Amino acid sequence: MDYCSSCGGRVTLRIPQGDSRPRHVCTQCGMIHYQNPNMVVGAVCMWEDRILLARRAIAPREGFWTIPAGFLENGESTADGALREVFEEAGARAEIERLLAVYDIPEIHQVQIFYLARMTRAEISAGIESLEVGLFTWDEIPWGELAFPTVKAILKDWQRLHQGDAVSRRDFWRPRPPEPERKP
Amino acid sequence: MDYCSSCGGRVTLRIPQGDSRPRHVCTQCGMIHYQNPNMVVGAVCMWEDRILLARRAIAPREGFWTIPAGFLENGESTADGALREVFEEAGARAEIERLLAVYDIPEIHQVQIFYLARMTRAEISAGIESLEVGLFTWDEIPWGELAFPTVKAILKDWQRLHQGDAVSRRDFWRPRPPEPERKP
Ligand SMILES: [Zn+2]
Ligand SMILES: [Zn+2]
Repeated sequence: MDYCSSCGGRVTLRIPQGDSRPRHVCTQCGMIHYQNPNMVVGAVCMWEDRILLARRAIAPREGFWTIPAGFLENGESTADGALREVFEEAGARAEIERLLAVYDIPEIHQVQIFYLARMTRAEISAGIESLEVGLFTWDEIPWGELAFPTVKAILKDWQRLHQGDAVSRRDFWRPRPPEPERKP
Repeated sequence: MDYCSSCGGRVTLRIPQGDSRPRHVCTQCGMIHYQNPNMVVGAVCMWEDRILLARRAIAPREGFWTIPAGFLENGESTADGALREVFEEAGARAEIERLLAVYDIPEIHQVQIFYLARMTRAEISAGIESLEVGLFTWDEIPWGELAFPTVKAILKDWQRLHQGDAVSRRDFWRPRPPEPERKP
């Protein structure tokens, strides 16, 4: 960030009074521009005992399989956002059954929230961000062609949790522990 | 948003190709500026059977009581963010026990994630955003002086859930249903 979105002035990185972190502060109007993590929402979406997957038509990981997921939009709830992604990427209408997992990925400034959803009719079709879509039993899942580590993780969480009640909570790519101190 | 944070050019609201929503697009460099919901993280933080509350020293709702909570920062997990707020606002060191609730507040573009935490020693002190801090049994909670509807909600969720396993999920201030059509 180089310019103020409010007045077009140059911004500089400094710690505002009463704050403890450097922020982008406008040199012209003084506005503080906070930068916060993004939310990704998605769903493990079922039809009977099958799981809905979409093969990505876009970078990153074009050609690999994922559950429907994407950035939460302003004005929608996380559940509504997950159902929107299910429809946009896989053409399926579904209902939320329960919260499944909260994943933290601080290194890429993301929090991901996943729901368990159930299709309300047996229709799927690839959206513009998908090459193809399919409904897979557990044994048919293309484990070697999944797009992201989080996709594998949420499928494993689904297997572990879809009959239980506990919501999974994972912290991905945690900062490494500090280097051990060097001897003088 | 009036100016591009990358080049300082004017931005205009239009629907980019392949998108379905209006975005702030730079008229000079073409950059698309997405605006996404913010995450608030907080904790119902316990010492024995008492709940840690802080009385707000800042607007909005100065002078009213809240659980420690605030905006998630880049580079931290939701759990770490909740513990940071517990320390910054109430001077308490704590450990996360479990996820307690996910609240959606789409009308103010917020998702709030609350944890159950447990203090690791009996020390509390008001941070600069707090007038005072206290440890309250259930019956001592100042119900008439709570800062936000979500504070009351999370305390009720804690009561309902702290012995169980289900994570609460609430959708606050959902968009009202459309007005009934007028007869001609
Ligand atoms: Zn400015
Ligand atoms: Zn620009």
